[in-house]
Amino acid sequence: MIKHIIGNIDFIESLRGKKATFMLALSNTKTANIEGITQAGIPGMIHLTPTLDSEFVCTGEVRSLENIAETPKGVPTPALITRGVHLLAPYGRVELLDLGLEVKPKVDYFRLHSFGVEPSENIAKGAKIDAEALFQKGVEFGKSYECKDEYIILGESVPSGTTTAMATAIGLKYKADYAFSSSFKNVPNNIREKTLKLALSNLEEKDDIFAVLSKLSDNMLIFNAGFIVGLNNRVPLVLAGGTQMACVLLIVNRMLQLMGSTISTTNLALCTTKWVAKDENSDIEALLELLKFPINAYYSNFDFSLSSHPALKLYDQGEAKEGVGAGGALMYGILNGLTKEQITQKVEDFLR
Amino acid sequence: MIKHIIGNIDFIESLRGKKATFMLALSNTKTANIEGITQAGIPGMIHLTPTLDSEFVCTGEVRSLENIAETPKGVPTPALITRGVHLLAPYGRVELLDLGLEVKPKVDYFRLHSFGVEPSENIAKGAKIDAEALFQKGVEFGKSYECKDEYIILGESVPSGTTTAMATAIGLKYKADYAFSSSFKNVPNNIREKTLKLALSNLEEKDDIFAVLSKLSDNMLIFNAGFIVGLNNRVPLVLAGGTQMACVLLIVNRMLQLMGSTISTTNLALCTTKWVAKDENSDIEALLELLKFPINAYYSNFDFSLSSHPALKLYDQGEAKEGVGAGGALMYGILNGLTKEQITQKVEDFLR
Repeated sequence: MIKHIIGNIDFIESLRGKKATFMLALSNTKTANIEGITQAGIPGMIHLTPTLDSEFVCTGEVRSLENIAETPKGVPTPALITRGVHLLAPYGRVELLDLGLEVKPKVDYFRLHSFGVEPSENIAKGAKIDAEALFQKGVEFGKSYECKDEYIILGESVPSGTTTAMATAIGLKYKADYAFSSSFKNVPNNIREKTLKLALSNLEEKDDIFAVLSKLSDNMLIFNAGFIVGLNNRVPLVLAGGTQMACVLLIVNRMLQLMGSTISTTNLALCTTKWVAKDENSDIEALLELLKFPINAYYSNFDFSLSSHPALKLYDQGEAKEGVGAGGALMYGILNGLTKEQITQKVEDFLR
Repeated sequence: MIKHIIGNIDFIESLRGKKATFMLALSNTKTANIEGITQAGIPGMIHLTPTLDSEFVCTGEVRSLENIAETPKGVPTPALITRGVHLLAPYGRVELLDLGLEVKPKVDYFRLHSFGVEPSENIAKGAKIDAEALFQKGVEFGKSYECKDEYIILGESVPSGTTTAMATAIGLKYKADYAFSSSFKNVPNNIREKTLKLALSNLEEKDDIFAVLSKLSDNMLIFNAGFIVGLNNRVPLVLAGGTQMACVLLIVNRMLQLMGSTISTTNLALCTTKWVAKDENSDIEALLELLKFPINAYYSNFDFSLSSHPALKLYDQGEAKEGVGAGGALMYGILNGLTKEQITQKVEDFLR
C-alpha cells in the first residue's frame, strides 16, 4: 500500500504503528494573487487557503470563511484527506507553523509556532524575503524542537507553491523545470512561464544562494530547508508533499554543497500521493535524483477509485494531486491499519 | 462525534489521538441505603456498586459479587461502556481513588490511591464528613500527582450521588435544584425531596462552606473539588460525568469566590453523555452557566440506536444516563477513531 519511489521500504515500515506529530507549514506568497496561477482555493480568497486548511485539520470546522476552500472546478481541498485520517487513526498531535500568513487560523489549544514572518511578495516582482534570517529561524527551530511523538510528518499549505518551487529550483541552477507539478491538471503554463520569466529577470550575476532565495522562493521552502538542517537527523521526519517538498530538499542539497558539508539523512524521507507519483506533467523521481545525499521517497497507493463522488473523482483525473500533507496523511493511515474503504468513506462523509 | 455544550471544540480536539489516564473516584455515602433513592445497583447491595464497577473496568471481571450491578429494571451499569472502550482503544492506564469504600476492589497491579477516608453518612442525618481535611487531601493529591499520560479523564461511581450533589448545590446557595439529574427516569422526587428536606434542616445559620459540605455532600464531590484546585491547570483534566461533576465545579467556584481568588481553567473540561445533555429532567448547561470561570463542556454524541438489546435500549429511554465516566470514555473512544458500531458491538458482547 505504500510504495517506494527511490530507496527502499524499510524506513517507512519501521514507523508502522508509531504515533506521529503532524506539523503543517503554512504560508502566503503574493504570487498566488496572479490571476489563474493556482486553483488551490476560492478566487479572490486564495490567501485564506492555508488558514482554512489548518482550521479544518485541527477542529473539523472552517472558521475564517463560510465554506471550505474549493477550487473553481469544485475540487475539494486535500485537507479532507488529512482530517479524515486524523478521525480514523489520530496523529499524536497537530501543530501549526505560521510562516507568514495573511490571516491567523482561529484555533485554541493547538500549538501554533510563530516566527515573526510576513507573507512574501509576488516573485514576478521579487519575493523580498530575508532568506538568510528565515533559514536561520528554521535551523534554530530544528535544533530546539522537542518531538513528543515518535516522528514528525511535515505537510504544507502554500497556494501557488509549485510555481515558487519551480522558480527556486531554476534559480539554484537545477535543470529540472519540466519536473514540477501544479495543482492544475492543465498546468497553466502561459501564466506560469510569464511569471517565471519575470521572476528570473530579477536575478543578478552576483546573487548568492540567499539572494536567489530572497527573490524567487517562498517562506515555507526556505524555513523547512533550515528546519531539516537544524533537526540534523535527530528525529525521523517525513516530508509530506510532492514537488514542493522535493524543492525543499534541493535547497538543503545546494546549501550543503556550498558549505562543503554533509548531513546524515537516514531519518529523512519524503512521502507523496499516487497522483503526484504518477503525474504525467511532472517527475518527482527526477527531482529527487538530483540530490547528492541518499533519500527514501514513497507514495501512498491510494486513489478514489472506490468513490463515485464526482468531486473526488477529479483527483483521479489529475485536477488536484497533493497538499496539506495528504500523501503523508494517507501513509500514516495505512501504517496504522486503515483500509482504502475506510478512508474513502470518511472523506465522502465530509461532502454530504 | 463530540459536541460542545458550552465553550468550543478546540480543547477536546487538541486531545485527539492522545493517551489518557482513566481515573475513577469511588465512594459510598449511606444516603444510598435509603430505599428507592437510587437504582445504581442491586437492592441491598447498592454499596457494592463502586467496588464492582471498578473491578469490571480494570479486569473485565466482577469479583466482590456474582453478577455485575444491574438496576432493578435490569439497566446494566455504564461501566460496560467504560470497559468496552478500554478494550477497543485502551486508556494509558486505569487508576482508582478510594474515597471511602465499604468494600475495597479486589484488583492487583492497578494503582489504588487511598486517603484514609471512611464512607460518609446519610445526609438526612448529616453526612459527618471532615470536609476541610478531605478538601485538603484533594489539594495535596492534585499538587503531587504525576500524570504518566497526556491527560486525565476523571470519572466517578457514587450511588445516590445525584442526591448529595443536589443537596450540596442547594446548601451552597445555588438556585439550581431543578437542574439535577438522577439515574432514574421517573426521578423519585418524593423520596428525594424528603431526604433533601431532612438534610437541609440540619443546616445552621453559622455554618461556613466546610460545615455545609460536611453535612450535605459526599466524599467524591469534596475531594475532587480539592483535586482540581491542587492540580491547578497543570495537566489537562476532563471531568467525566454529568450533574455530579458539575457540582464539583460549583464547589470549586464557591471556594474561589470565598477566597477572592481565581484559577486558570483552560486545561479543564467536562464531558458527559448524550443522555445527560439531552435529559429533560435536568439541565447541565444551566449548572455550568452558574460558574464564574470559563469552562469547556461537551457530550459524546452516542446512543444505543444501533442496538436492539432491550437492556441497552433502556439508556435511550432515559432509565440510565451516566456514571463510571461513561461520557468521557465515549469521548476517548471517539477521539481515538472508534465508531458507534464498534462500541455498540463491544457493549453488547458483555450481555451475551
